[in-house]
Amino acid sequence: MTKFNTVLFDGFETLDAFGPIEVMGHVPGGYEMNCFSLQGGTVESKQNVRTHTLPFAEMDTAGVLLIPGGIGVRPLLKDDEFMDQLRMLAEKAPHVLTVCTGSVLLAQTGLLNGRRATSNKMAFAWASSHGTEVDWIKQARWVQDGKYYTASGVSAGIDMTLGFVRDQHGLQAAEAAAGVIEYVWNQDADHDPFAVL
Amino acid sequence: MTKFNTVLFDGFETLDAFGPIEVMGHVPGGYEMNCFSLQGGTVESKQNVRTHTLPFAEMDTAGVLLIPGGIGVRPLLKDDEFMDQLRMLAEKAPHVLTVCTGSVLLAQTGLLNGRRATSNKMAFAWASSHGTEVDWIKQARWVQDGKYYTASGVSAGIDMTLGFVRDQHGLQAAEAAAGVIEYVWNQDADHDPFAVL
Repeated sequence: MTKFNTVLFDGFETLDAFGPIEVMGHVPGGYEMNCFSLQGGTVESKQNVRTHTLPFAEMDTAGVLLIPGGIGVRPLLKDDEFMDQLRMLAEKAPHVLTVCTGSVLLAQTGLLNGRRATSNKMAFAWASSHGTEVDWIKQARWVQDGKYYTASGVSAGIDMTLGFVRDQHGLQAAEAAAGVIEYVWNQDADHDPFAVL
Repeated sequence: MTKFNTVLFDGFETLDAFGPIEVMGHVPGGYEMNCFSLQGGTVESKQNVRTHTLPFAEMDTAGVLLIPGGIGVRPLLKDDEFMDQLRMLAEKAPHVLTVCTGSVLLAQTGLLNGRRATSNKMAFAWASSHGTEVDWIKQARWVQDGKYYTASGVSAGIDMTLGFVRDQHGLQAAEAAAGVIEYVWNQDADHDPFAVL
């Protein structure tokens, strides 16, 4: 079974991680979902959800990689060990999905250089000040460039993940997943009602 | 700070719990969020998210109570100790929110008797076969009756929680929370695109 590997860290934004995980739990054939952090152990989200994680060293790097954002991104940008490991994991992964300021972490690795990407809209100026060689797209619900999918803020991660499911498994599979979780899917990656706020 | 107490159990549906928690994390003044299970310890969602919980005995029962649904609901309906404790917690709570088949757990306590409520649309026949004295509403994104808020499947919990925020803190607070998490809020509790599927 294909792995779906979520990177967690203290101060991650709860829905950035668990929205995509919910979606991937309803894909035909299934994915094996696991959460990881640099050292493993309990990680606490900004909203105080305490989640058990495995260490990065135990990750099957052939799986899809999900990188959420959140207030906890800021200290990690200066954490060389974390950033080196993240770069290695993102290089190896066949697909990398980021939500919100998770794209800032990915940009910091250099892997988005020369590529199109988006991020949280309220923190867009801050986000896009990182990775100056990234082609930051302000108006987008999500952006796909090669193996990289980057979503706007928080809830946009659910829409992007359904888009990823569509690209990998077909429109019917994506619509079925949205139906089971009774989610009104914003299917158009280019329609971004939050870019103008 | 007001408490927001989430009941977890093995096999809970990930987004049922973490969508509402995400929303409540963006309410002015703030809520203290904690997750609980009957005995405490690590609880695993249907999608393999392993969450640390406190035991029911440590819950401040003056807080808002959230009850998610999921495949794990079925065995609990026959678990007398769990159901007795849940009934006590729901009786004491000033507000009780359920998502998806979380309303079936609440119906089983008897506390929804004579009240309007809704549930998951794909499992609606099964759900509404429990709590035969409940006025089950098939076409609703969510239903509020007194202190009880019940949402349809999974994602409807996010819409309901924003509705709860509106009722408690005003429309502006709810719209601000939706904006921060870049969520396209389905504001109309009576509009249910999934009832006809």
